[in-house]
Amino acid sequence: MKIIIIGANGTIGKIVTEALSKKHEIIKASRSKGDVKVDIESASSIEAMYKEVGSFDALVSTSGEAYFGPLKTATEKEYRTGIDSKLMGQINLVLIGQHYINNKGSFTLISGSLAEDPVAYGSDASMVNAAINGFVIAAAIELENNVRINAVSPGVVEDSPGYFDYFPGHIPVKMDEVAAAFIKSVEGAGTGKIIKVH
Amino acid sequence: MKIIIIGANGTIGKIVTEALSKKHEIIKASRSKGDVKVDIESASSIEAMYKEVGSFDALVSTSGEAYFGPLKTATEKEYRTGIDSKLMGQINLVLIGQHYINNKGSFTLISGSLAEDPVAYGSDASMVNAAINGFVIAAAIELENNVRINAVSPGVVEDSPGYFDYFPGHIPVKMDEVAAAFIKSVEGAGTGKIIKVH
Repeated sequence: MKIIIIGANGTIGKIVTEALSKKHEIIKASRSKGDVKVDIESASSIEAMYKEVGSFDALVSTSGEAYFGPLKTATEKEYRTGIDSKLMGQINLVLIGQHYINNKGSFTLISGSLAEDPVAYGSDASMVNAAINGFVIAAAIELENNVRINAVSPGVVEDSPGYFDYFPGHIPVKMDEVAAAFIKSVEGAGTGKIIKVH
Repeated sequence: MKIIIIGANGTIGKIVTEALSKKHEIIKASRSKGDVKVDIESASSIEAMYKEVGSFDALVSTSGEAYFGPLKTATEKEYRTGIDSKLMGQINLVLIGQHYINNKGSFTLISGSLAEDPVAYGSDASMVNAAINGFVIAAAIELENNVRINAVSPGVVEDSPGYFDYFPGHIPVKMDEVAAAFIKSVEGAGTGKIIKVH
């Protein structure tokens, strides 16, 4: 398969790229380096990426920022971080990508355990992750040409120790398990699934 | 209690207002008429509303628009309808309102069954409703001064027959049950709850 990986140089993107590259042709996409550049906060940048890549079989997104900080001092501005990046960025990958993806292709987005298991300072991420999950189950019943869509929802991952203190009592998720979830989405037959890794 | 009801003239707002007014002082808020005017898509309009109302015990939101239409032709523009109105509008009611609400007060937002039970044409609403639920469970663990927050998540309601064809096999929800869910949130002691009415 020809697979576009968004955020291929990130903490999760790296291990997903490594895992999928064993069997597939990978197009690495990221903001500053890779095979193709893309800023997922810009619909026109996403459109340009798809035009440059041409036909493809799977889009895997491991990217997107969200605000992490106290609810008490948050304003719309902080919440728009997650909305514009991790949420609308990933949704635009699908809204635009549905017109470029091959029949029987798949989209795999990334959400996260905060959607259902919140921590202090994580309200923007909880909102955004839940939104992605809601979009995925709905888009799955409308996508045409047997195109599938799933989300991988990891907990805090072992390679992000900087976040451990925000997740007291959460057992960091092994990177291998995160990679496996992406493989399950791309090579499996499921659609509309939230693949939990936590 | 002194309760602000957003969207008090809407299909759901009307019955919630009627139910809560039996025991409480109600401040009706809506875009064009009511005791106080507010445009929830504007943070400054929300701030002005809270300043005008003064201290209050509960904020009940029954308002917010979302795009209803095919995924295939949707663009970011259509998705921003739900994000700016039903999602960011309601979240701003909380982000700003947390600085005005009385101790032991409560926020009650509205989401909807599409968060977990999607229908064709409902992907924006699925995303937005799920996002609201995700925000509510996270905000509940950070709000101070014993302030509570819940969401009421109704299915298609019996007073909105124009939507019935989009919800095949869904049994329309009785308005009395929707009103009861809002009473449960406001007068009950729960927080971080998604009160399902479907």
